[in-house]
Amino acid sequence: MAKDLVLGIDVGGQTTKCGVVDAEGNILAQCVIRSDDHTDATEFVDSLSDALHPLIEKAGAEGRIKGIGMGAPNGNYYTGEIENAPNVAWARNGRVPIAKMLQERMNGIPVTLTNDANAAAMGEMLYGAARGMKNFIVITLGTGVGSGIVIDGKVVYGHDGFAGELGHTCAIRDGRLCGCGKRGCLEAYTSATGVARTAQEWLEAGEDKDAPSLLRNNVKITSKDVYDAARQGDNLALRVFEYTGRILGESLADFIAFSAPEAIILFGGLARAREFLEEPIRKAMNDNVVSLWRNKVMLLFSPLKESDAAILGAAALAL
Amino acid sequence: MAKDLVLGIDVGGQTTKCGVVDAEGNILAQCVIRSDDHTDATEFVDSLSDALHPLIEKAGAEGRIKGIGMGAPNGNYYTGEIENAPNVAWARNGRVPIAKMLQERMNGIPVTLTNDANAAAMGEMLYGAARGMKNFIVITLGTGVGSGIVIDGKVVYGHDGFAGELGHTCAIRDGRLCGCGKRGCLEAYTSATGVARTAQEWLEAGEDKDAPSLLRNNVKITSKDVYDAARQGDNLALRVFEYTGRILGESLADFIAFSAPEAIILFGGLARAREFLEEPIRKAMNDNVVSLWRNKVMLLFSPLKESDAAILGAAALAL
Repeated sequence: MAKDLVLGIDVGGQTTKCGVVDAEGNILAQCVIRSDDHTDATEFVDSLSDALHPLIEKAGAEGRIKGIGMGAPNGNYYTGEIENAPNVAWARNGRVPIAKMLQERMNGIPVTLTNDANAAAMGEMLYGAARGMKNFIVITLGTGVGSGIVIDGKVVYGHDGFAGELGHTCAIRDGRLCGCGKRGCLEAYTSATGVARTAQEWLEAGEDKDAPSLLRNNVKITSKDVYDAARQGDNLALRVFEYTGRILGESLADFIAFSAPEAIILFGGLARAREFLEEPIRKAMNDNVVSLWRNKVMLLFSPLKESDAAILGAAALAL
Repeated sequence: MAKDLVLGIDVGGQTTKCGVVDAEGNILAQCVIRSDDHTDATEFVDSLSDALHPLIEKAGAEGRIKGIGMGAPNGNYYTGEIENAPNVAWARNGRVPIAKMLQERMNGIPVTLTNDANAAAMGEMLYGAARGMKNFIVITLGTGVGSGIVIDGKVVYGHDGFAGELGHTCAIRDGRLCGCGKRGCLEAYTSATGVARTAQEWLEAGEDKDAPSLLRNNVKITSKDVYDAARQGDNLALRVFEYTGRILGESLADFIAFSAPEAIILFGGLARAREFLEEPIRKAMNDNVVSLWRNKVMLLFSPLKESDAAILGAAALAL
């Protein structure tokens, strides 16, 4: 009972999830606060620390929290700052030194920050699909596409702390406009948003126009709509997933050539469409990879519950 | 005078270069032997050790060689084996445990092996453009395209020892057939061979057919021909380099997103065409990279003399 505990905090655009975690990855207590009801970082950190103190008490963890790990969009491990995170209301422009701010309010308990995809990679290494692995890549498939790269047992941060932006490598030269301002990024095709865009674009282009589709006449298609339609055998929806999987697999083949990982692990909302994505991804990955890695790199899906994984990943940073 | 020395050995398809090197990167003595006059690995290692003993004597280095570093195509750092190296007559099929074989003939002096591009990266870090850097990528532009990736001051070997095959990432989807059997690899466009192929293909396709070109009616164009023509202001040759540079720059933009390096360093025969390649590479790299790295990652050309660099890179492995 006297073992050290850590706090894991996952900052998202809408909500921030917090949990008290032990070394075995048990979440002893957790809470969720809103991230989007403040435009001022100081006010957000105030309400975060207001939530953390009772949480620690609830877990019977007073005096036992040895560190705080925090995953956040554009979180920089080196500086402890969130930098220009478009989806976070109080960190949209400029730099928020959130690690330092929180540490001051938490009586000096050290706070370690990284981006959410790197936190996911830490979580997989300690508690998930990558236990025992030293070289792997986690691709997070959510609203966007992120990545956490682990080489020799360590997350790759690079020269400036921002390594692992694989969602913004080029999947289709001069392709679709991405939210980042570039064209053809992997994220523009293989995120939840990308899946919805593919379906929308194909319908608008009159694809399959003489065949029935559950997606037709849907004013605003979501990736959930595409998934639901695919589950009902909708041909267009199935083809959207096949196309998405192929594009992702082609990119994964190139990522393998970089760091020769033992496995690639898919994580996040869209990874739940595994039944439709897995085979096209695996095929394209093996068709396009250098022959020495063909059928040798594992393609895995995260076994972690998404709600827990974000907290566990952040907690793993502090362990 | 009593300082430790190392041997650097660069195994190429045609020749193998050997040198006795001190900690400051001075080559005290060197020799070259043929790699291609044996089809049996044992015979090659015999003639190599026959050359090394007098070389050590010539450098006055008897008893002072503390290690041997060796760069070779498909050299595996983990296993000490050369595996299926198509251009090396005695290592074409299967695995040659060359580190162990040489160590036995050299009275147990430890031999460390890696591939030639990783050796080049080591050489840049110790003696070249990457001195003082911890995160950089070396791209070797020769007959093929290789890469050595350094993260946190260490060469990336990956799970199996073969990381850093960036020459075989996809530059043009469904593009030109590469020597590796895949289509559209970076190597098929931005190697010396690739430059010659581009010129040949463009001429065959009737590109610029009404304009004069020094390359026309050349039965077998080499990259040297294209370079010489470009130096004389030949329009087609200049455009070949511009195209080559653009393709390389586009790929470099994606490599940056992986490991966030401080610099990318170009090395090898084709890098000598810097006057024609540098600007197109830099432009395409910055046009295509994620905005946070735009104009922030240095593009450097190796300052090392190519003949020395191979020996120094291999020697750096043993230091």
